[in-house]
Amino acid sequence: MTDKLREAKPGTTKLGWIGLGVMGASMCRHLMNAGFAMTVHTRTRDKAAPHLAAGAAWADSPREVAERSDVVFTMVGFPRDVREVVLGDAGVLAGCAPGAIAVDMTTSEPSLAVEISVRAAARGVFAIDAPVSGGDVGAREARLSIMLGGEEEAIEALRPCWAAMGKTAIRQGGPGAGQHTKLVNQTLIASNMIGVCEGLLYAHKAGLDLDTVLQSVSSGAAGSVSLTNLAPRIIARDFAPGFYVEHFIKDMGIALAEAERMQLALPGLALAKQLYTALAAQGHARAGTQALHLALAKLSNIDW
Amino acid sequence: MTDKLREAKPGTTKLGWIGLGVMGASMCRHLMNAGFAMTVHTRTRDKAAPHLAAGAAWADSPREVAERSDVVFTMVGFPRDVREVVLGDAGVLAGCAPGAIAVDMTTSEPSLAVEISVRAAARGVFAIDAPVSGGDVGAREARLSIMLGGEEEAIEALRPCWAAMGKTAIRQGGPGAGQHTKLVNQTLIASNMIGVCEGLLYAHKAGLDLDTVLQSVSSGAAGSVSLTNLAPRIIARDFAPGFYVEHFIKDMGIALAEAERMQLALPGLALAKQLYTALAAQGHARAGTQALHLALAKLSNIDW
Repeated sequence: MTDKLREAKPGTTKLGWIGLGVMGASMCRHLMNAGFAMTVHTRTRDKAAPHLAAGAAWADSPREVAERSDVVFTMVGFPRDVREVVLGDAGVLAGCAPGAIAVDMTTSEPSLAVEISVRAAARGVFAIDAPVSGGDVGAREARLSIMLGGEEEAIEALRPCWAAMGKTAIRQGGPGAGQHTKLVNQTLIASNMIGVCEGLLYAHKAGLDLDTVLQSVSSGAAGSVSLTNLAPRIIARDFAPGFYVEHFIKDMGIALAEAERMQLALPGLALAKQLYTALAAQGHARAGTQALHLALAKLSNIDW
Repeated sequence: MTDKLREAKPGTTKLGWIGLGVMGASMCRHLMNAGFAMTVHTRTRDKAAPHLAAGAAWADSPREVAERSDVVFTMVGFPRDVREVVLGDAGVLAGCAPGAIAVDMTTSEPSLAVEISVRAAARGVFAIDAPVSGGDVGAREARLSIMLGGEEEAIEALRPCWAAMGKTAIRQGGPGAGQHTKLVNQTLIASNMIGVCEGLLYAHKAGLDLDTVLQSVSSGAAGSVSLTNLAPRIIARDFAPGFYVEHFIKDMGIALAEAERMQLALPGLALAKQLYTALAAQGHARAGTQALHLALAKLSNIDW
């Protein structure tokens, strides 16, 4: 165990952050608020303005972030972005010193997490896959569930960082295990979202009062976080993104590809991906996942 | 408002109960424990033994139960049973005096609830549809969600009865509205169960530890009552019935028939019904609904 794997400490451990979207912006800020020195980079520099104003340093590339940091976090959009930002010529691994830790918090491919881990190890760098669940609200309130894959000592060394961003941080296994667990999470949500939308459409067509129906069904065996959090938004016609449709389609695509590789048929997840693909085709790729309701309504020619 | 629609009171209001299965046995018992005089009838008299021992009277037919009661509750299996027990020659309505209340707590067809209500009204009898959510545990612990359809004054008169059996009792509208709401409830559960099973199968094939995965996903956006209550039973290979597969298939069939009548396509519910039909074909009609996992496992040739 090298010096660098001592527990991360504000004032001692220098952190880097790449990707300041809806999720990343809040998560990076929590680490800064915990007292860590921070260097940031993001595709659109404007998005870093609040962090720079609060004392973060700017670097012109992921590589430069890594050159100045002991631990680098990435939170970007798609696996292709992870590949470029972590493995590219100007990427994180190119800038990491031996003993550094590279943490990818993007929901991405388990196989890519394994590839990153192997290439990191060749440079004496530790890699952790650490996707999260909890959405924009969970990120803002530091109540995320962080699903961890990688070497135990590296994961343990970052306990103060996980604690700053989430309420749950559990190691699920070696490289890729965090990503696999996140895909389980998305598989659970996908079919449940179909149920939420179909239940509301049934209630609507039956002439029931939707808010009153929710009072009866939310507290019983049909209760779920999606029902509690998203059904009221659907009823209020609020389809603003907590989590983007296009990102959810990406996640379901990864899960289905992994499942096919493992010879596992997932008919519910496949149906959900088809319905979300229709939703994107209808122009809602940048809406929130609760907009699935619009695709199911359109299917039966219902104006919502 | 007749005398009979004064609020139900132990010592004054005589209750009747028909159907002492897993759910009905507990619910009837709660009313007795609340101090109500009780007359019971059930297809298999042996099942009434504990209630008779605790002071209930026996009647040889639903009609006789009604002849001796101010309020009669039915909790049987299928709509055909409801039709026979409530509308048959030896049924509840044939025995009810004007001003009596007939409450069907079976999950049944909204159209049958309307038919019962019309035929009851012709005799001066009030009808309420009052299906419940919460399963065997909810029935045992008097924590059911009771979904009510019918005339408001009759529903209000029975507040002491609802309070004895459930934690939530909400009027959803006129006759059939309780049944429609229960079908919303089942629609929500159906797709969610697919998600729970598929999530666990993905985790299994990915080589993850299932209990550890549940720790990560249960508390976040993927959380649901089914995940919390049924996933551990699936992991423990416990497929004993809380709620029978064959009853769930019945409920989904009613919901899909109603939806078709309302010109509403519900692809998720349709998929769930197909998978549960396969499960029944595999010999699991009398297992609990969490046994869906076995059908999805078999689909990918996984021994569970």
